[in-house]
Amino acid sequence: MVKKVYEYDLDESFDIYLLIKSADVRLAKNNKSFIAFTFQDRSGQIDGKFWDAKEDEINRFQAGTVVKVSGKRELYQNNPQLRISKMRIAQDVDAVSPEQFMERAPLRTEEMVEEINNTLFEITSAPINRIVRFILNKYHKAFFDYPAAKRLHHAFAGGLSYHTVSILRLAKTVASNYPGINESLLYGGVILHDIGKTIELSGAFSTEYTLKGNLIGHIVLVDEEITKACEALKIDEDTEDVILLKHVVLAHHGKLEFGSPVVPHLLEAEVIHHLDNLDASINMIDTALQRTTPGTFSERIFGLENRTFYHPNESVAVEKE
Amino acid sequence: MVKKVYEYDLDESFDIYLLIKSADVRLAKNNKSFIAFTFQDRSGQIDGKFWDAKEDEINRFQAGTVVKVSGKRELYQNNPQLRISKMRIAQDVDAVSPEQFMERAPLRTEEMVEEINNTLFEITSAPINRIVRFILNKYHKAFFDYPAAKRLHHAFAGGLSYHTVSILRLAKTVASNYPGINESLLYGGVILHDIGKTIELSGAFSTEYTLKGNLIGHIVLVDEEITKACEALKIDEDTEDVILLKHVVLAHHGKLEFGSPVVPHLLEAEVIHHLDNLDASINMIDTALQRTTPGTFSERIFGLENRTFYHPNESVAVEKE
Amino acid sequence: MVKKVYEYDLDESFDIYLLIKSADVRLAKNNKSFIAFTFQDRSGQIDGKFWDAKEDEINRFQAGTVVKVSGKRELYQNNPQLRISKMRIAQDVDAVSPEQFMERAPLRTEEMVEEINNTLFEITSAPINRIVRFILNKYHKAFFDYPAAKRLHHAFAGGLSYHTVSILRLAKTVASNYPGINESLLYGGVILHDIGKTIELSGAFSTEYTLKGNLIGHIVLVDEEITKACEALKIDEDTEDVILLKHVVLAHHGKLEFGSPVVPHLLEAEVIHHLDNLDASINMIDTALQRTTPGTFSERIFGLENRTFYHPNESVAVEKE
Amino acid sequence: MVKKVYEYDLDESFDIYLLIKSADVRLAKNNKSFIAFTFQDRSGQIDGKFWDAKEDEINRFQAGTVVKVSGKRELYQNNPQLRISKMRIAQDVDAVSPEQFMERAPLRTEEMVEEINNTLFEITSAPINRIVRFILNKYHKAFFDYPAAKRLHHAFAGGLSYHTVSILRLAKTVASNYPGINESLLYGGVILHDIGKTIELSGAFSTEYTLKGNLIGHIVLVDEEITKACEALKIDEDTEDVILLKHVVLAHHGKLEFGSPVVPHLLEAEVIHHLDNLDASINMIDTALQRTTPGTFSERIFGLENRTFYHPNESVAVEKE
Amino acid sequence: MVKKVYEYDLDESFDIYLLIKSADVRLAKNNKSFIAFTFQDRSGQIDGKFWDAKEDEINRFQAGTVVKVSGKRELYQNNPQLRISKMRIAQDVDAVSPEQFMERAPLRTEEMVEEINNTLFEITSAPINRIVRFILNKYHKAFFDYPAAKRLHHAFAGGLSYHTVSILRLAKTVASNYPGINESLLYGGVILHDIGKTIELSGAFSTEYTLKGNLIGHIVLVDEEITKACEALKIDEDTEDVILLKHVVLAHHGKLEFGSPVVPHLLEAEVIHHLDNLDASINMIDTALQRTTPGTFSERIFGLENRTFYHPNESVAVEKE
Amino acid sequence: MVKKVYEYDLDESFDIYLLIKSADVRLAKNNKSFIAFTFQDRSGQIDGKFWDAKEDEINRFQAGTVVKVSGKRELYQNNPQLRISKMRIAQDVDAVSPEQFMERAPLRTEEMVEEINNTLFEITSAPINRIVRFILNKYHKAFFDYPAAKRLHHAFAGGLSYHTVSILRLAKTVASNYPGINESLLYGGVILHDIGKTIELSGAFSTEYTLKGNLIGHIVLVDEEITKACEALKIDEDTEDVILLKHVVLAHHGKLEFGSPVVPHLLEAEVIHHLDNLDASINMIDTALQRTTPGTFSERIFGLENRTFYHPNESVAVEKE
Repeated sequence: MVKKVYEYDLDESFDIYLLIKSADVRLAKNNKSFIAFTFQDRSGQIDGKFWDAKEDEINRFQAGTVVKVSGKRELYQNNPQLRISKMRIAQDVDAVSPEQFMERAPLRTEEMVEEINNTLFEITSAPINRIVRFILNKYHKAFFDYPAAKRLHHAFAGGLSYHTVSILRLAKTVASNYPGINESLLYGGVILHDIGKTIELSGAFSTEYTLKGNLIGHIVLVDEEITKACEALKIDEDTEDVILLKHVVLAHHGKLEFGSPVVPHLLEAEVIHHLDNLDASINMIDTALQRTTPGTFSERIFGLENRTFYHPNESVAVEKE
Repeated sequence: MVKKVYEYDLDESFDIYLLIKSADVRLAKNNKSFIAFTFQDRSGQIDGKFWDAKEDEINRFQAGTVVKVSGKRELYQNNPQLRISKMRIAQDVDAVSPEQFMERAPLRTEEMVEEINNTLFEITSAPINRIVRFILNKYHKAFFDYPAAKRLHHAFAGGLSYHTVSILRLAKTVASNYPGINESLLYGGVILHDIGKTIELSGAFSTEYTLKGNLIGHIVLVDEEITKACEALKIDEDTEDVILLKHVVLAHHGKLEFGSPVVPHLLEAEVIHHLDNLDASINMIDTALQRTTPGTFSERIFGLENRTFYHPNESVAVEKE
Repeated sequence: MVKKVYEYDLDESFDIYLLIKSADVRLAKNNKSFIAFTFQDRSGQIDGKFWDAKEDEINRFQAGTVVKVSGKRELYQNNPQLRISKMRIAQDVDAVSPEQFMERAPLRTEEMVEEINNTLFEITSAPINRIVRFILNKYHKAFFDYPAAKRLHHAFAGGLSYHTVSILRLAKTVASNYPGINESLLYGGVILHDIGKTIELSGAFSTEYTLKGNLIGHIVLVDEEITKACEALKIDEDTEDVILLKHVVLAHHGKLEFGSPVVPHLLEAEVIHHLDNLDASINMIDTALQRTTPGTFSERIFGLENRTFYHPNESVAVEKE
Repeated sequence: MVKKVYEYDLDESFDIYLLIKSADVRLAKNNKSFIAFTFQDRSGQIDGKFWDAKEDEINRFQAGTVVKVSGKRELYQNNPQLRISKMRIAQDVDAVSPEQFMERAPLRTEEMVEEINNTLFEITSAPINRIVRFILNKYHKAFFDYPAAKRLHHAFAGGLSYHTVSILRLAKTVASNYPGINESLLYGGVILHDIGKTIELSGAFSTEYTLKGNLIGHIVLVDEEITKACEALKIDEDTEDVILLKHVVLAHHGKLEFGSPVVPHLLEAEVIHHLDNLDASINMIDTALQRTTPGTFSERIFGLENRTFYHPNESVAVEKE
Repeated sequence: MVKKVYEYDLDESFDIYLLIKSADVRLAKNNKSFIAFTFQDRSGQIDGKFWDAKEDEINRFQAGTVVKVSGKRELYQNNPQLRISKMRIAQDVDAVSPEQFMERAPLRTEEMVEEINNTLFEITSAPINRIVRFILNKYHKAFFDYPAAKRLHHAFAGGLSYHTVSILRLAKTVASNYPGINESLLYGGVILHDIGKTIELSGAFSTEYTLKGNLIGHIVLVDEEITKACEALKIDEDTEDVILLKHVVLAHHGKLEFGSPVVPHLLEAEVIHHLDNLDASINMIDTALQRTTPGTFSERIFGLENRTFYHPNESVAVEKE
Repeated sequence: MVKKVYEYDLDESFDIYLLIKSADVRLAKNNKSFIAFTFQDRSGQIDGKFWDAKEDEINRFQAGTVVKVSGKRELYQNNPQLRISKMRIAQDVDAVSPEQFMERAPLRTEEMVEEINNTLFEITSAPINRIVRFILNKYHKAFFDYPAAKRLHHAFAGGLSYHTVSILRLAKTVASNYPGINESLLYGGVILHDIGKTIELSGAFSTEYTLKGNLIGHIVLVDEEITKACEALKIDEDTEDVILLKHVVLAHHGKLEFGSPVVPHLLEAEVIHHLDNLDASINMIDTALQRTTPGTFSERIFGLENRTFYHPNESVAVEKE
């Protein structure tokens, strides 16, 4: 099994294949061009600078191509950085393809599709069930392809559906422990809560915000989709369940200052807000700790008030499974 | 000309007709019932308590009826209060009707209709023009009937359209002074910005929040209406002007913590936000100052961070026509 | 089965037994004494005033006695209130005892003891396991008797352990879904996180803050207990697991402004913070909704930024189980 | 007509005259000196670095001289930057002078003087009229020369009076739409509100804060000027109109945290605060959008909470006038 | 020695002389008038209600008269309250005068005058010395008569100068411990910092805010006085020491949101801000603790974020002096 | 007497001995190594870059060695920076040792020991006296060696005890001016308040946070020490004086958001909080002003909301002793 970039020790020399995720050409202080690369393999992403880049190198080392890099991983101001000593384009004999290097959700798409489909049977409210199926169907491909965010959490292909499935699992424990929960509303809300990101973001790779993403935002975009689903399915939009479903989506950021136009006024809205936060937090911390040497603190996590997290030594966790 | 309740001096005895706006029966400490009234005439509203209310008095003194009240206006903890000494139901010979006592916008409905219709001709963007006409048409009656808020500002019949027309007038000065402004977007945005209040609120009198008002809110309700207008009018909702129009409506509260799901990213969105605030502030201060003796400070205004406002003496304003 | 106070409709007359939870004698405006009661049965608590109280009534109607009350439940400024028409002390023939009227956790103590004991076997870190057992043992009785708070959430006998068990159930789902979790730390932290409330609060009934509660607070009080446990058990307090355990307890309020002296820097600290919040929120909403007529909004919930929550009509939840 | 720096496309080569606004000599990583220039012409300002600067180049390329530059405009981390390929001092035959390159208010000084003078006739309160004339007279030259700020908005020669005139125009619409307004106070307040900047700032070019600017601030500096005007003009400073005039100046930042020592307690103070904000916001957005390609977002605007603004495509505005 | 109202135990009956500080006549729920009194003697102030007040009682029991009251001190919602059983006007034979009941600063005026005069000799900067003497002289009587605030701290006659002297004492320790301090600036700033309260407030008794107090505020009022002193004394107001003196006064609230128009940019400004806070805090806590039974917590202190303070039992302090 | 680095003028060439405080080797844009030094002597610390560092230079120029540097002090973006022209290791003939270059508290250790010992006699509460002696004894060496912070204030060897002694001096003035103060509690609290920093920080030089420092924090660490002292000294931890002592330590940051788990509820806690702030602020400003040319503003001070402080010209302070 080939070792990946984050499986090497700091300052250990290596000679590995990496995918160029992005390549920006800039002018150095010495008036020569250099390339600011972001590389990736399935262990994560890493930046690296390629100095004194010549015209043909600039042309060849484009985003999307796989390269073989000799170098090592260093720490620069507590952030990982790749120091490149040699680099060439991968060739046919190397037998590598870009797909091998892209991070993906730890669950296969089919598993996620099935888990969500099974949940649909537990949505016993007819209007909620029909609306959720309609929207899922409309954005099916993107929903299972897109990341959950451009950068913050679950920022990998399939991240959106993986985030959704993870919350659904927590939601089921909540529903079974607290009898007052309306499962139709809870599960329907979880499945739809972030699906507007398929409109807010530009795609699974080189993800950017679209104009609608910037000017309307994924929260209201879901509300629009529910409105359109009602028109298409001839569901009266004054049905209480429709209003409730819109509310749990609109309120899922929990506070006005986080971008929800209304604060939670339903038990299920409050629960979705908490579970969304919990799953995103765990994912951000997990990602950071995987790149942190035991016994030290991680880099600062932007989405968690710039806190650092400690990776414990010889934790009991090690013995787990 | 008959004097109105706020035209009498403090502690001056009077004998006038008033409309009962609301009447809550409560239990006093001495175990007898009393009625907590809110009365109104066109000079404003005032609270007053009716002690030791008998069964038949409770039945007769209902909201919506006109009464003749002997009493005086007092200050209780810096708030005006009516001290009732005698009170009876108005009769036919009194020749008074509830309409005479309801506060209304200072402009007649027809004037406001005309002013808004004239503005439509200045909206030269075809999609914006068609959407605005469609929604105005759909909610025409309510738009010219409803207040702009339950309590805070323009809380009187016709207040919603009056607030809109007032902003439009300011908007025209802005458009003529700053050449970079897109008038279609500015005027379209002003007209639609609060029209969701026709769904958020229950009506022109005894106004309450509806379920949709509480759980979705007037800002997103307008966005839904634009979405539905596009479907009805076969306008592609990816047209840039449609996205811009949605944005100026969604962003008009200016900050996330004031309930906008996105902050202004368009010049026109920023302008509408400022003018909306300006007109609402002037209306709240004006209303408070009308009830404040010159040389003293008004009661605290909730919508303006509980500030009090000073009513100057012998102001130059007095000489103004 | 006897109906309880919240099982009667608003304004429906009843004749029921209630426990006097507290009884404050005050002077009315008419210079006579009245008693401000808080009554309770297992459906909840309710306030009521008893006017013109005579000396012997004041002496007899003390906190802790069961009374038979004729009256009805009213709404006063959107808060429930008991209107008393007649009231007498319960007698032997009534065959009622105070215990029958006290709210308790929905789980029996033995069930909770067993659930927590079972969890102890999953704490495989020796120092954490020994410390948790030592402290649990020391405060065993109070831990299963005390409420989780004076007023905010789980404010009933046994509420502290019930809140702990509820979080433990969620914690197990989290541990099974996210492989990076250290279960010893997570479960140990959950069990200890609020146990300082047995020192912070005065007891299971008529709960007040103690001097140590006011001046040190339950968070630091747990830290002190861990320090003392280490001394007693001869565990080196520099052991990493001890430091981690202290941290997850100290950080469980999540933010400095909520009273944690440190913010979470461990994955498990972040998770405990979220689950603690989630369980407390659900309990507060549930309690409020049980007293709210379907189709209306609850009273404001102090612990949730004064939000009101909507109790939906004919919710799908009704059909559940 | 000669094209200006912001009229060229990004990355289009040009050969134009520019004024050196500032020139800082620094040491590069390669131990050679470079010059960090800010250039300007009437289309705006732009930074550019001149590498490997020799002694005589450092001596010749000083702030205030006009140069001919060959190069192109680039984007560096979303900020415009000038890439210099060649550069020489302009000579007599080039027939260019620094004044041609300085940004100025879009109105001529005489127009602004006249507009303000005309307004003085509408200030019918004698004390306000005399005070305003006295102060205007004292700071006349600076008032029509200075910028309105060092960097944030209207940061060009004549910007202070231009900002004042722009607000006056809005103020007149407000006064004509809302009858409760005291025009003497409103117009007097607008004219004086920022005149303390003639003391706070060092001058029209290379503007810095003075010691009084830093330690007293322009708001209190105006209050001092009113105090001194009263002494000079023998106006009793306890005259209500004087107190009101001071208040509208002191309160014009609207909130304590924005540097006003008192919050608005007069209708006119509230209005001036809003109009000041509105005009400054429009100016900042306008300036940013002029440098932004249609269909993209501007750089972040510091004075507007770091928001970016979108420059729409084929906006209807294009067809205007 | 006659015992004062706060020297009696709670609920202990007494028969003492008190000064009526204020007397508001209000209407009770039973439609009879009652008087809401505030009484005071040198141990503090206390409220009390007088029910069923007759016309002649209302006329006789006016603010400023001394009465003999039979009653006791009670706690009402944790606030002290006087329960009146009998009350009559004091007569000549009682040999009491209002002055005996007014709280005053614990130092005699002459002591304070001397202490401040001595300090003037340590102000070696000529302009600061002259300005401080000029202003002190101008407001001499009020400065030694007024309270330091209407309610918050040092709210008694002479409180303003007492607060000033207390800070001066601390300031001298600071100056002797930290050699970098400019004593002229520090002592001059301390003496002037709150002297604007002689204009902001209406007088030593029944203190209210004046119009200038409300619309300009004591901080800027001092700045105006320095400006006028410079004119009168022909001191150039651009002298650095004058600017520094203005700054330490303007900045003494420490933060913009507390009403300073500039934040401290001088060491001495920072020191004055801290000492002002420290002295005010100690005074507020001391006042509250004097009315608090040992072993219990005080009422909430508004000026200290509504915190309560604990009055310890058998504190070592008891043995002091 | 040899001149120190901050005693030379800006841009004046010098040839002086400096201690290397830290030396980080980094890669320059030209692919050569450079060393980022922090140097220090007793006038302060200063950064400087050494370009094109060779292997043997990297090996020789290590932290802890004294070097002779030719160069000058420059300003880079308003921060002082050392421009190195030549540099060599100090040799025996140079007769310099690292100790000569380390900043230390301005008081000798013995003076501080004596001052604190004398204070112990004024702590008349037996439990407080014994606890303070026990903890002081346990951490004696570190307490007089450590800095008070890693960077913010008193960041030099002995800074912790120096900060403590400085506060004690202020505390004695407070105790003598305000009779309500409990001196045992005040002095005991001052001595212990920051002693947890001996556990939180790693040592007197190259100071870093320890794991306990990061995860528990110095405030709670003192509380633990008091708990352990009680166990060791057989003092009942429910003694009121023990609870009070813990409280003044826990509350000394004054607000929850500054890391205190409880806010001050004791007069002495409030006083310690203020004096701690005052002494830290003066130290930070003093340090900054020493490096600031008279007539200019200092660099921004991070610990004081990034404010800059003005160093006045020809201040009266100059004449002081």
